[in-house]
Amino acid sequence: MKSTNSKDSSHGQPSIVRRRIVALAGGVGGAKLAHGLAQILAPEDLTVIVNTGDDFEHLGMYICPDLDTVCYTLAGLANPETGWGRVNETWNTIANIEKLGGPNWFRLGDQDIATHLERTRRMKEGQSLSQITRDFCAAWGIKHTILPMTDSPVRTMVDTDEGELAFQEYFVHRHCEPRVKGFRFDGVNIAEPAPGAREAIESADAIVFCPSNPWVSVDPILRVISLTPTPLPWGEGRKVVAVSPIIGGKTVKGPAAKMYSELGIEPSALAVAEHYRNILAGFVLDSVDSEMENSIKQLGIRTLVTDTLMNNLTDRTRLAQDVLNFIRS
Amino acid sequence: MKSTNSKDSSHGQPSIVRRRIVALAGGVGGAKLAHGLAQILAPEDLTVIVNTGDDFEHLGMYICPDLDTVCYTLAGLANPETGWGRVNETWNTIANIEKLGGPNWFRLGDQDIATHLERTRRMKEGQSLSQITRDFCAAWGIKHTILPMTDSPVRTMVDTDEGELAFQEYFVHRHCEPRVKGFRFDGVNIAEPAPGAREAIESADAIVFCPSNPWVSVDPILRVISLTPTPLPWGEGRKVVAVSPIIGGKTVKGPAAKMYSELGIEPSALAVAEHYRNILAGFVLDSVDSEMENSIKQLGIRTLVTDTLMNNLTDRTRLAQDVLNFIRS
Repeated sequence: MKSTNSKDSSHGQPSIVRRRIVALAGGVGGAKLAHGLAQILAPEDLTVIVNTGDDFEHLGMYICPDLDTVCYTLAGLANPETGWGRVNETWNTIANIEKLGGPNWFRLGDQDIATHLERTRRMKEGQSLSQITRDFCAAWGIKHTILPMTDSPVRTMVDTDEGELAFQEYFVHRHCEPRVKGFRFDGVNIAEPAPGAREAIESADAIVFCPSNPWVSVDPILRVISLTPTPLPWGEGRKVVAVSPIIGGKTVKGPAAKMYSELGIEPSALAVAEHYRNILAGFVLDSVDSEMENSIKQLGIRTLVTDTLMNNLTDRTRLAQDVLNFIRS
Repeated sequence: MKSTNSKDSSHGQPSIVRRRIVALAGGVGGAKLAHGLAQILAPEDLTVIVNTGDDFEHLGMYICPDLDTVCYTLAGLANPETGWGRVNETWNTIANIEKLGGPNWFRLGDQDIATHLERTRRMKEGQSLSQITRDFCAAWGIKHTILPMTDSPVRTMVDTDEGELAFQEYFVHRHCEPRVKGFRFDGVNIAEPAPGAREAIESADAIVFCPSNPWVSVDPILRVISLTPTPLPWGEGRKVVAVSPIIGGKTVKGPAAKMYSELGIEPSALAVAEHYRNILAGFVLDSVDSEMENSIKQLGIRTLVTDTLMNNLTDRTRLAQDVLNFIRS
């Protein structure tokens, strides 16, 4: 299946040999690579498992920032300027909440609010997040499978020099200003992977860690997947490949580099590879970081050096094809 | 205080003798007369007590249709076409809820949703509806006092030939189609009047029943006010005046006439006067119903025959002045 945008892509030849891929994704960066993969892979060959540790309740609504970013992006509904939220958005609700003295620190567009209200309504009816996500994806015309990592509440808590903060409080309300000391994933020990996640991983030829924050986007997914009573069989004939979210010591978006620094680790592609060293078969790093290639190889990890910045759909699809070729090689 | 719209009024001379007025109001018709009264009376001389029996929870939000209609109208924010909702409204949230297969039978505009979200947020924090209404009125520039009838949940239940229906289910979702057999105000026996309502009534020179539905707008307020441990002293030197919501056997808006018919009562201004006969000192009926004046007088109720249709602010203010002159006479 090609999205309606695939004409914009200079790549996108379908793989001759089919590969079943599971992509693990957080927000904007993860959504971009997942979007690229969706340009190339058939719907039945791609499952995107999305972090829900950032989920929170706000104004009485259950909000899933990463899940919505991935869905909006794959549906072609995402705001291309911000990476989050909806394209052609209006802001009449939040403007009026502001006039009433209500909280305005989390910017919610009018179309976006529909997602949160309807999701919250269904959850109160007893529907699971994965069921709701399946229905929403169908309504938005998304053919690939997008799963929340779990239907259970898992909450990323950020330990900082100002105490422990809920993730959105740290990330959006406090603009990532407090110094990070560590992370805790509240509820992770009893969270089961969402229905279908285990099966998708077991039947996958490869697992791709999208260029998302290792600490607060990918780690919560890995914790949910590994900490179940029956740990999932990583590595057994299955290739695990990560794409570095750090390019030239910086992140395109988000606080990953800042978090590495505050935790006493030099932020770099190498640091990301080391973070995942026990589970990785391959690692994709940006051309600007090519001098780290040998150090990463010395960890026993194969490498691909390529351009990893994704400014448009052409970039996303090209990087996705590079990753798929790397897996096949 | 004059609203910024008072230049549209050909009337609006302030009363020489001040009168403290409490107006009881439901939705659109009540809001219009309350708006007219607010053009003439000083902020400290008008308290509008609004029905909350129509309140309901929808999409997780606490919605107060009558309270919002009165507030939006007095603030000059009401949609002049519909009488309910906001002027210059957009509908992006509800359109997207519809795309997701969610409930669309209750039309919620994007600006209007801000009111419901912020109210719900504050209620969950423990704030009372009257406190929230006071803050919202301040934010919207409303200087007169608007009170919900109570801070407790009271729910108007409509007994119909299809069983008992919650009011909005009957009114909006079912378009008033089921035949009415009676009404029940769930919670009314333990509901206390909102803070300030008792004091406003005790210090009022007159109580005005706005042209709202007697069965489901004014009756719930009367029940809350009268059924408290210390019944409020009706009539004692205090004039109670009602304005008929039925003109020529019909209602301008809403199901009052249909309800009278289904309850076996010919809908008419006379029927409204009879409904309130034990508490009324005066009754205002439309010129088209002047032949009923004598029958109403025979109930021991004084009458005023005038034009009661309110198509614009001039009409609202003129009718309000007529009512105030009638009270003074």
